[in-house]
Amino acid sequence: MNPRSAVDLAQALIRCPSVTPAEGGALALLAHVLETAGFAVERPVFSAPGTPDVENLYARIGTQAPVLVLAGHTDVVPPGDEGRWTHPPFSGEIVDGVLYGRGAVDMKGGIAAMLAAALDFVATRPDFPGSIAVLITGDEEGPAINGTVKLLDWAKAKGERFDACILGEPTNPERLGDMIKIGRRGSLSGTLVVHGKQGHVAYPHLARNPIEGMVRLLAGLKATPLDEGTDHFGASNLEVTTVDVGNPATNVIPGEARAAFNIRFNDLWTPASLEAEIRRRLEEAAGNAVSFEASFEDTNAVAFLTEPNAFVGQVQDAIEAQTSIRPALSTTGGTSDARFIKDHCPVLEFGLVGQTMHQIDERVPVAELEQLQAIYGRVLEAYFAG
Amino acid sequence: MNPRSAVDLAQALIRCPSVTPAEGGALALLAHVLETAGFAVERPVFSAPGTPDVENLYARIGTQAPVLVLAGHTDVVPPGDEGRWTHPPFSGEIVDGVLYGRGAVDMKGGIAAMLAAALDFVATRPDFPGSIAVLITGDEEGPAINGTVKLLDWAKAKGERFDACILGEPTNPERLGDMIKIGRRGSLSGTLVVHGKQGHVAYPHLARNPIEGMVRLLAGLKATPLDEGTDHFGASNLEVTTVDVGNPATNVIPGEARAAFNIRFNDLWTPASLEAEIRRRLEEAAGNAVSFEASFEDTNAVAFLTEPNAFVGQVQDAIEAQTSIRPALSTTGGTSDARFIKDHCPVLEFGLVGQTMHQIDERVPVAELEQLQAIYGRVLEAYFAG
Ligand SMILES: [Zn+2]
Ligand SMILES: [Zn+2]
Repeated sequence: MNPRSAVDLAQALIRCPSVTPAEGGALALLAHVLETAGFAVERPVFSAPGTPDVENLYARIGTQAPVLVLAGHTDVVPPGDEGRWTHPPFSGEIVDGVLYGRGAVDMKGGIAAMLAAALDFVATRPDFPGSIAVLITGDEEGPAINGTVKLLDWAKAKGERFDACILGEPTNPERLGDMIKIGRRGSLSGTLVVHGKQGHVAYPHLARNPIEGMVRLLAGLKATPLDEGTDHFGASNLEVTTVDVGNPATNVIPGEARAAFNIRFNDLWTPASLEAEIRRRLEEAAGNAVSFEASFEDTNAVAFLTEPNAFVGQVQDAIEAQTSIRPALSTTGGTSDARFIKDHCPVLEFGLVGQTMHQIDERVPVAELEQLQAIYGRVLEAYFAG
Repeated sequence: MNPRSAVDLAQALIRCPSVTPAEGGALALLAHVLETAGFAVERPVFSAPGTPDVENLYARIGTQAPVLVLAGHTDVVPPGDEGRWTHPPFSGEIVDGVLYGRGAVDMKGGIAAMLAAALDFVATRPDFPGSIAVLITGDEEGPAINGTVKLLDWAKAKGERFDACILGEPTNPERLGDMIKIGRRGSLSGTLVVHGKQGHVAYPHLARNPIEGMVRLLAGLKATPLDEGTDHFGASNLEVTTVDVGNPATNVIPGEARAAFNIRFNDLWTPASLEAEIRRRLEEAAGNAVSFEASFEDTNAVAFLTEPNAFVGQVQDAIEAQTSIRPALSTTGGTSDARFIKDHCPVLEFGLVGQTMHQIDERVPVAELEQLQAIYGRVLEAYFAG
């Protein structure tokens, strides 16, 4: 196994069955490879009541600023029905130029390309002016409690300071080079309970149907858009995810109706301002006619944006030089650990094509892994050139 | 036990534990009492696959027209937690002038008052010009499949013809004499399924949320009243009885939403015309944006009205003479077996005060039983006077 080859390294990582929260040998493998290349490696384990202990990895080479962080996760989602895979999910088979396996794109392939590029870079430029830090968690696909958040706090407590970070999540919708993510929308979930008065359908004047109130509230929530989007974000969006009454009796007006909703929101909102707006809409729709309660989860998924800066430009340039595609700067999609990293340094995300992530037969063309390694190599050259 | 006393007869009936479909000795008791008084009594048992066999009773005295039918049911709903009753539900205890027990008002008390009056009437007026038929089912509180419907068809097949019917259900909201029911609203139930497309809340453009469609449809159903009521009926009314999605995942847009509704409708509608109107409203609310299916139960609960006629006037007069209250003519409340009888002859309903029916400590003042017996006696006198 040549650790300066993204393909070799990705294949070795896929063979480690590191379904969250199992380490599966993946971090041990990376620790060995990084130590051999001269990195100082630490493997802190974090715990919290009610969650499994999780192993993490922090490595650094160099003592000077600037510090560029390469970030990722080695844990993977379960393979599902293994019998439905064309090649076993932890075998890392390469067939017709395609590497198969759970984590191939999300994101053992991304980590492999990053680290292969970094090992190559430090071997050929041992005197580069700065430091490379490697931040790998084993708890991204799980509760994300004993992973990146704690690893960042732990590093900060040791005095580590970071200047920029690239997170290797799969970001491209179609082709390698399509898209860099420079931020993510926030996510806020809530529930709604409408209180009515139970009764017999033949005597509606003695009852109060909570479903009518619920229909009013839900219509009110969706009546006007939350916003029209911003320079780098699409419009915020609310989806009602469930409505439940559970009344089996066709002659009974129920006493209560429940609903849940989730909002993906842009940088015009904080969770607090959004909650206030939702409560305002609910109050307005309810008037004096509907008795309801709304509650909101405690969320750390705030919207954030890394304003396009010189580093973002360097990554765009590196991608374009390698692929001839000028990547779009996007904030679409779900949340990622970038929401934690952004509190420590500017962060962007760029990795493989996400189409097969979390699916049966997750896979990546070998040529794309090699291209991604080359892109990361160009990023390192550019970042430490100045 | 004096069968010409409504109180004695009601107490004896309450002591028969005739929870649907059990006969509990109630029909045997009535058969004995009626035969002794000179009625010809038959006790047909009806069956249907998937339902319990049910005993019924048909009795007649007299051979001439007109035939006045006294109708009712001896079956009762379960007593619930017997420990919560002040007096055991099948003990028929009389305390401080009040008779306690399951069926006291719904409707062993009503049957007892009817039949005590009838026995008194035939004993004192053996030569009355007409006939009295007694139609008692043991399947009113249950599926109502092996009860009144079949008993009426069976009697018709034997050549029996009826001229008027009084059904002794509890009809008075507050005081004995308040209310005669001369019709009932119809009942139609239906279900609604809205088809969407499941997806991730972060990618709403790839999904279609069925809850938005459901909210539109339900708002459309309730947007305008079905009607304003008619001379003898209140406005028709639709209640949505449940909405269910059952999606536990806050990050998933569900694929389908379901709802059920029930409509209590007046004589402006048939089930068919109402279904057409509901479908029209749904189509209008859906436009091209919502994919849905609606289905309607097969209902025999059509709206019907016994136009106020001479017999209705005789019953009003009898009530007023006895109680000094002129009863209102109403069509409110749930359905009853009157919906089946109305296909055979004009039917009205008058009985006790319904407040304790189906409840713990169901009960009736002895004085009300005696008054009701006197009212039915006046009705018999008036009906056969002409
Ligand atoms: Zn990932
Ligand atoms: Zn009844």
